[in-house]
Amino acid sequence: MSAARLDATHDPLLLSWVESANRPGADFPIQNLPLGRFRPRRSDEPLRAGVAIGDQILDLRLALEQCPWADDVYPLLGPLAAGDVNSFMAMGRSAWRRLREALSEALAEGSDQGPFLELCLLPQAQAEMALPCRIAEFTEFHAGIHHAAAVGWLARPDHPLLPNYKWVPLACHGRASSVGLGAEVRRPRGQVKGAAEAPEFVPTRRLDFELEIGVVVGRASAPGEPLTMAQAEDTIFGLVLLNDWSARDLLAWEGAPLGPFLGKNFATSISPWIVTMEALAPFRRPQVRPAGDPPPLPYLDSAANRAAGALDVVLESWLATPAMVQPAPLATSSLLDAYWTPAQLVAHHASNGCPLHPGDLLGTGAISGPQPGQGASLLELTQGGRQPLTLPGGEQRVFLHDGDSVILRGSCQRRGAVRIGFGTLVSTVRG
Amino acid sequence: MSAARLDATHDPLLLSWVESANRPGADFPIQNLPLGRFRPRRSDEPLRAGVAIGDQILDLRLALEQCPWADDVYPLLGPLAAGDVNSFMAMGRSAWRRLREALSEALAEGSDQGPFLELCLLPQAQAEMALPCRIAEFTEFHAGIHHAAAVGWLARPDHPLLPNYKWVPLACHGRASSVGLGAEVRRPRGQVKGAAEAPEFVPTRRLDFELEIGVVVGRASAPGEPLTMAQAEDTIFGLVLLNDWSARDLLAWEGAPLGPFLGKNFATSISPWIVTMEALAPFRRPQVRPAGDPPPLPYLDSAANRAAGALDVVLESWLATPAMVQPAPLATSSLLDAYWTPAQLVAHHASNGCPLHPGDLLGTGAISGPQPGQGASLLELTQGGRQPLTLPGGEQRVFLHDGDSVILRGSCQRRGAVRIGFGTLVSTVRG
Repeated sequence: MSAARLDATHDPLLLSWVESANRPGADFPIQNLPLGRFRPRRSDEPLRAGVAIGDQILDLRLALEQCPWADDVYPLLGPLAAGDVNSFMAMGRSAWRRLREALSEALAEGSDQGPFLELCLLPQAQAEMALPCRIAEFTEFHAGIHHAAAVGWLARPDHPLLPNYKWVPLACHGRASSVGLGAEVRRPRGQVKGAAEAPEFVPTRRLDFELEIGVVVGRASAPGEPLTMAQAEDTIFGLVLLNDWSARDLLAWEGAPLGPFLGKNFATSISPWIVTMEALAPFRRPQVRPAGDPPPLPYLDSAANRAAGALDVVLESWLATPAMVQPAPLATSSLLDAYWTPAQLVAHHASNGCPLHPGDLLGTGAISGPQPGQGASLLELTQGGRQPLTLPGGEQRVFLHDGDSVILRGSCQRRGAVRIGFGTLVSTVRG
Repeated sequence: MSAARLDATHDPLLLSWVESANRPGADFPIQNLPLGRFRPRRSDEPLRAGVAIGDQILDLRLALEQCPWADDVYPLLGPLAAGDVNSFMAMGRSAWRRLREALSEALAEGSDQGPFLELCLLPQAQAEMALPCRIAEFTEFHAGIHHAAAVGWLARPDHPLLPNYKWVPLACHGRASSVGLGAEVRRPRGQVKGAAEAPEFVPTRRLDFELEIGVVVGRASAPGEPLTMAQAEDTIFGLVLLNDWSARDLLAWEGAPLGPFLGKNFATSISPWIVTMEALAPFRRPQVRPAGDPPPLPYLDSAANRAAGALDVVLESWLATPAMVQPAPLATSSLLDAYWTPAQLVAHHASNGCPLHPGDLLGTGAISGPQPGQGASLLELTQGGRQPLTLPGGEQRVFLHDGDSVILRGSCQRRGAVRIGFGTLVSTVRG
């Protein structure tokens, strides 16, 4: 069962009775229907799942109680009404499809369910969002080849990409407990090595962001059981924006021989809406490799992945300082710039029998574009901290200052399809 | 509040009415009282917590129902009776102390509760053990300095220990989903690089064990809030034996620049009984550093840690092949051979604000002794696979064969205290 099938829910002519969903450029038209968790702001009500539609949230707890549904939809809404997105995800793709279909019909112009569901909307501005699911474990890949090459060039100008890069979807484990929505990110302290023999324990001086996509695993895999590429594809529930905060000076000192630890695990931010693989079906693309690159090993290869395993998600980073009137764009890239597709990340992760669980989050690694101005981190945009960026108001930045906000956006667009968005992930650095 | 206080529960003269607990050399005398989870073998009853006493398990679900307790003990037994060790651990050290005291009194010779609790025992041989708690996240440290030096020597004979080693408790994140009791461990497949340009995807040819201690975090720390050394000490619930299975050929190919991933995360085995820090109090020792080594940075230092932060847990590894009549000893070391104490691992982990959760498992890294024959892995005992081991029956081993069993044991002994044991962690390799 492939995630790439197009059906009536993708019809570009489909409109919603929620009028804000029909505005050109809306992140959340009826073709998107991403899942998140929320409670009404300033309430202490339990979390429940909702679906973003225009500038509103369809509250699935109210929707379960107050609207008639087909019999087979109630078991899908049950866990979501209780805020348990993980249990819903564990039901698998046929459940994900069925709910999308039911929500698409119910939110479409002229739906009989409209009058019931009008009472189940909450403006997004009145919601307090939470993590969209319980994060089981977090794995950080290194699939952005232009980022890998740029960072590698800083360390090894003669051979920036290591010999394993084009064979292995490189990764390390990350920390789930510090994954959050990241409205505020505290500048961490840690060991930093200067010229003196002893390291200092100080606030990081090289705080950076990394713009990534987070792949949300929906279905479990069994211990000891690798996944085929087709199974891997069917394991993926959807994608979020991900900011993999990095303290470059901590990383430089602690990183050998075991890789990143405290320089990364103080914070990872994700966007609150999971854009489902169903919503992304119109934006699939062939996996393209430069001529001469080795083909993926068989366990990472399939005809479906070659034909449509990649996704054209346009990624943008912006920076706002306290002195600026409006945010300044930093860089733009696309998930097509990743060397490995989401299904390849999942298949590799399970290839040794490591079990995956609903709610596992796989970061792609920073997704930079091929051009020098397309770096998905300040490390790249300032050439390792050597060339400060000059911002529109004349301020300069090498790494982030307290009070700076990093703004990440993602969206998909193509002729013949309605644009869908990932929303906006804004985080402000606190000292 | 320190874990090192000795009280009546440590009295070496204390005996239990469970006679097997009083046998010399028993792993689980009344001074130990480790926690685990189990169900009666061949039943489908829900898991409940139990305490090992001699060759029996005190079933805490039955003990709650069938025995009178002081009022303040019931709230402690509640979550344990339901198999929720994590919630019990989250209650903190005063709760841990109170339960130990209550169990020690109840299991002591002459206790009024004896006649009730006799009905709450299950022979360990009739129990199916489970993980002793829900593992939240797994972090793998590198605190065994002799292991780090031996492995570093294989890669860099001129400078085996990197310059950060004596400053930073080095670590990387691991995978919680593949932590188990590990009765059987399947040989994983993965990418292995030989002389050809393309790697092969094959079963590992260099499957190895690593003998470690696992530190079980009991109390949560708050996001953004580092822990003092005293708080770090009070965060630790107890210790288990840990076998950090390693596929050396997978690790060699995937390991740069991000560190271990699929070469480690296929399986991690721990022993089923958590030996509490209270039980270990008599076996604390000063943290000893070789002359000339730098003192720990202030966030990793405290008078209590210098005086009694280290623990003398004797560690043993054994190997049994299908052809052998009885297991052969491989090596012996002590947790005193670790360069960092458990509290230092915890304080370092939280030093950047990364939140810890009940059930987090911190592997110390392989704990080898200073002598060549004291390697806590086959990699060390065979000098990187170059010098096969000859076993008692004449067989040779470089790395593990299918059917081989690795047996790990741990125990504490000193004059004036009753020996306490960690039990035995036996795992057999399957192809």
